[in-house]
Amino acid sequence: MKLGLLFNITAAEHQQLAALPDLEIVDLPTANTDPKSWLDVDIIYGWNTFGDQLLQLPHNHLKWIQSISAGIDYMPLAAIKQQGILLTNTSGIHAEPIAEFVLGYLLAFSRGILASTQAQQQHRWVSDALRDQVFNLSHSTIAIFGTGHIGTRIAHYCHSFAMTTIGFNTAGHSAPEFDATFAAGANPSALQSAKFIVNALPLTAKTTGFFEQSFFEQLTGQPLFINVGRGPSVDTAALRGALDQHKLAGAVLDVLPDEPLAPDATLWDQPNLWLSPHISGGFEDYGAAAFAILFKNLQAYLADGQLIMNQVDLDKGY
Amino acid sequence: MKLGLLFNITAAEHQQLAALPDLEIVDLPTANTDPKSWLDVDIIYGWNTFGDQLLQLPHNHLKWIQSISAGIDYMPLAAIKQQGILLTNTSGIHAEPIAEFVLGYLLAFSRGILASTQAQQQHRWVSDALRDQVFNLSHSTIAIFGTGHIGTRIAHYCHSFAMTTIGFNTAGHSAPEFDATFAAGANPSALQSAKFIVNALPLTAKTTGFFEQSFFEQLTGQPLFINVGRGPSVDTAALRGALDQHKLAGAVLDVLPDEPLAPDATLWDQPNLWLSPHISGGFEDYGAAAFAILFKNLQAYLADGQLIMNQVDLDKGY
Repeated sequence: MKLGLLFNITAAEHQQLAALPDLEIVDLPTANTDPKSWLDVDIIYGWNTFGDQLLQLPHNHLKWIQSISAGIDYMPLAAIKQQGILLTNTSGIHAEPIAEFVLGYLLAFSRGILASTQAQQQHRWVSDALRDQVFNLSHSTIAIFGTGHIGTRIAHYCHSFAMTTIGFNTAGHSAPEFDATFAAGANPSALQSAKFIVNALPLTAKTTGFFEQSFFEQLTGQPLFINVGRGPSVDTAALRGALDQHKLAGAVLDVLPDEPLAPDATLWDQPNLWLSPHISGGFEDYGAAAFAILFKNLQAYLADGQLIMNQVDLDKGY
Repeated sequence: MKLGLLFNITAAEHQQLAALPDLEIVDLPTANTDPKSWLDVDIIYGWNTFGDQLLQLPHNHLKWIQSISAGIDYMPLAAIKQQGILLTNTSGIHAEPIAEFVLGYLLAFSRGILASTQAQQQHRWVSDALRDQVFNLSHSTIAIFGTGHIGTRIAHYCHSFAMTTIGFNTAGHSAPEFDATFAAGANPSALQSAKFIVNALPLTAKTTGFFEQSFFEQLTGQPLFINVGRGPSVDTAALRGALDQHKLAGAVLDVLPDEPLAPDATLWDQPNLWLSPHISGGFEDYGAAAFAILFKNLQAYLADGQLIMNQVDLDKGY
């Protein structure tokens, strides 16, 4: 069995793989590597355009791809499905960093941290004005779209701060850490008056453009909107309109339809919008956590051809 | 019994006070009010320079002052003690907002929120650089100076994020939510290598200038230092030196020795320093929470001359 690397691993991880029986490791391709030289590769770890080229070659040997991300919307899912290739992701490892990221913005907003940073740049001591704006998180409501690993972890921390959590998913099924759940598309009064709204949905045909003008127009609580899901789920023009019309008190976008954002984009200077460069899922041991999933799946796959965790449903797209 | 107001109350609160037997209310003084007209006032709610003037008058009638703050270092404690006046503060009501404020900065720092805000102003998409810096809070150590209401509440939330909490107080006595406690002045290795250090000490002779050069020099963990206590506890020049020499990764000052900070102060532009204008203890129901303490003490005081909560030890200064 041949494993092709499209993501860097450490020397120690290399040794762990080398100790597995019946496994040959094919190192990262260089700019000169011919995809045809990978025709006998069975398994790929990571993904990039080299993988796309290999997948398009007839008689490629691919049986399984282990991505290093949770979202796999950037991969050629139709071709993967059509060729009968299995796909696993790293869903789960991003839950902790993304939940901490979201809580960080909730508190930075509610406690006047974002406003203080702005005032500092202008050398302005705005004590009285800010004291009238800051509020405690306790007893405010957060609406979270996506009740998987990430949404659940966010809701868990929100409960630590005595917040009310409502969740939205495909069918409105209940989920741990949520005080109530609804089908995405429902607009209960708790959503309309929520103080915080978070998108943690995977990108699928259904969730593309989900947060558009009519979504923002129904809101009455002047919430802070946070996108830690995927950029194309939000209609950026509609979001900017909602900010300009104060339907939203603010917005945080960690993901955008087109990344990186060009230096001359007007979005950088949109009032009450905070941008971060797609970092919410990062943490110091990311590579090790992703490798741990590869390794567990690999041991099982070499033993009996089964994958034991994080297999993607190619029809659902997550 | 006469109660003089030096802090605004609502109409509803006025009615609550009016319903108490044997209590006369003296409204807020104007610029023209002669302090001598308050000579028969027994109780004061709030404090300002008018109170200072009244206190200096011979034959004033003051028996009890209810402050609207937790820290009372700005009041003439020696004169209050010498005249046998009782003093109560609002210690306790700031614990929740200050703890949320501190957690907000921990997360804004660890998750790259502060760095993203800075990059946004420069229109820079710094994804790779930031992804290498961000880290999860879990398993990092926070050292908290002050283990009262505020320190305990901060430690509580830090435990929610699976952090290790060490506390410092006068004698090193144990306190809830702290994994270990030490006497202030001790320098255990857990302090030296801590990732976060928070000052929540009251200002007394002992804590004035406590955080000076030798304190910062002992640190090896390049922590973020946060002051939510009182400004004069930190030697600002030593702090700036520690930032310049990277003994500290960053610092957050919500309080300063002199407030407000002048617009032309160089401190505004100190790299890796985040300033907020003394807002950490604020929240939307501040006035109501402070009044609730006044009202409970007042009921007891009118009944039998006793104060039932938040009496300040005038020798200790908190």
